[in-house]
Amino acid sequence: MRKTIFSLSIAVIPFLLVAPVLADEGNPAIIHRQGIYSAVGGHMKAIKSILLLEFDAAKDVTFHAQGIVDAFTHMGNSFPPGSDKGETKAKPEIWTDKDKFAQLGKNAFGAANDLLKAAQGGDKQITLAAFKKLGESCKSCHDDFKSK
Amino acid sequence: MRKTIFSLSIAVIPFLLVAPVLADEGNPAIIHRQGIYSAVGGHMKAIKSILLLEFDAAKDVTFHAQGIVDAFTHMGNSFPPGSDKGETKAKPEIWTDKDKFAQLGKNAFGAANDLLKAAQGGDKQITLAAFKKLGESCKSCHDDFKSK
Repeated sequence: MRKTIFSLSIAVIPFLLVAPVLADEGNPAIIHRQGIYSAVGGHMKAIKSILLLEFDAAKDVTFHAQGIVDAFTHMGNSFPPGSDKGETKAKPEIWTDKDKFAQLGKNAFGAANDLLKAAQGGDKQITLAAFKKLGESCKSCHDDFKSK
Repeated sequence: MRKTIFSLSIAVIPFLLVAPVLADEGNPAIIHRQGIYSAVGGHMKAIKSILLLEFDAAKDVTFHAQGIVDAFTHMGNSFPPGSDKGETKAKPEIWTDKDKFAQLGKNAFGAANDLLKAAQGGDKQITLAAFKKLGESCKSCHDDFKSK
C-alpha cells in the first residue's frame, strides 16, 4: 500500500508542475471538439488516400469509416454556452441558429453511417459515392458555421 | 439489375470528373500517414481536454486511447521509398536512419498501449502519467524526424 502511494506521488508530480500552464491553453470544450474533428478529418484524409489516390489499404476503409462514426458518437456536450469565446473557428450562428446546426450535424452523422455501411458492403464505387456525400455534408455545415 | 447499373453509373460520374484533379494533390503515402497522425493527434487533444482541462467526459479517455492504438495499427506502409518528396514534414533521416525511426515508432506504440491499459484501469493520475509519457514519446520522434 505504501509503495502504491509512493509510486502515485512520483507519477503526479510532473502534472502538478505542468497542469496550470496547460490549463491556460484554452476552453476545454473548444479543445475537445477540435480533437474530435481532427480525428474525423484524419480518418477522412486516410480514406481519401485509399479511395482516390490508390494508397494500398483497401481493407482499412471500414476501419476509418467506423472511426468517423465513433468520433462523432463521442462529441458529447462540445458546444456549451460560452464556448464561442477563445481560439475557435466556431461562428456565433451555432448558438443563434441551433436547430439548423443540429440538423446539419445529424445529416453528417447519417452520412458517416451511410459511408460505414457502404464500406462494409465492399463496393468501391458505392463507397466513393458515400464518401463524397459525407464530404459535402461536412462542407455544408462548415460553410454556415465555421469561419475560414 | 438495369436499375442497379443505372444508379451506379450516376454515382460514379462525379468521381470520374474529380478524381484526376484530386489525384494530383499529393503522394498517396504522404496523405495516408498525415491522416493517421491527424487521427492520433485528435484523440490526444481530446484526452488533454478531459485529463488536463476538466472537460466532462472522463469515461471517454479509454475510447480515445483505443483510437490512438488503432490508428497506429493501421499505419501500413506509410513511409515507402520516394515518399520523402512532396508536401511533407518528414525528414530525410526517416529513410537514412531507419532503425532509429523504427525504434521510436515502437516506443510510441508501446506508450499508446500503456496509456490504454492505464485508462482501462480507471486511475486518473496513473492515466495522466501515461498520457504524458506518450506525449514525450511523440515529441522525441518529432524532434529527430519531423521538420518544424
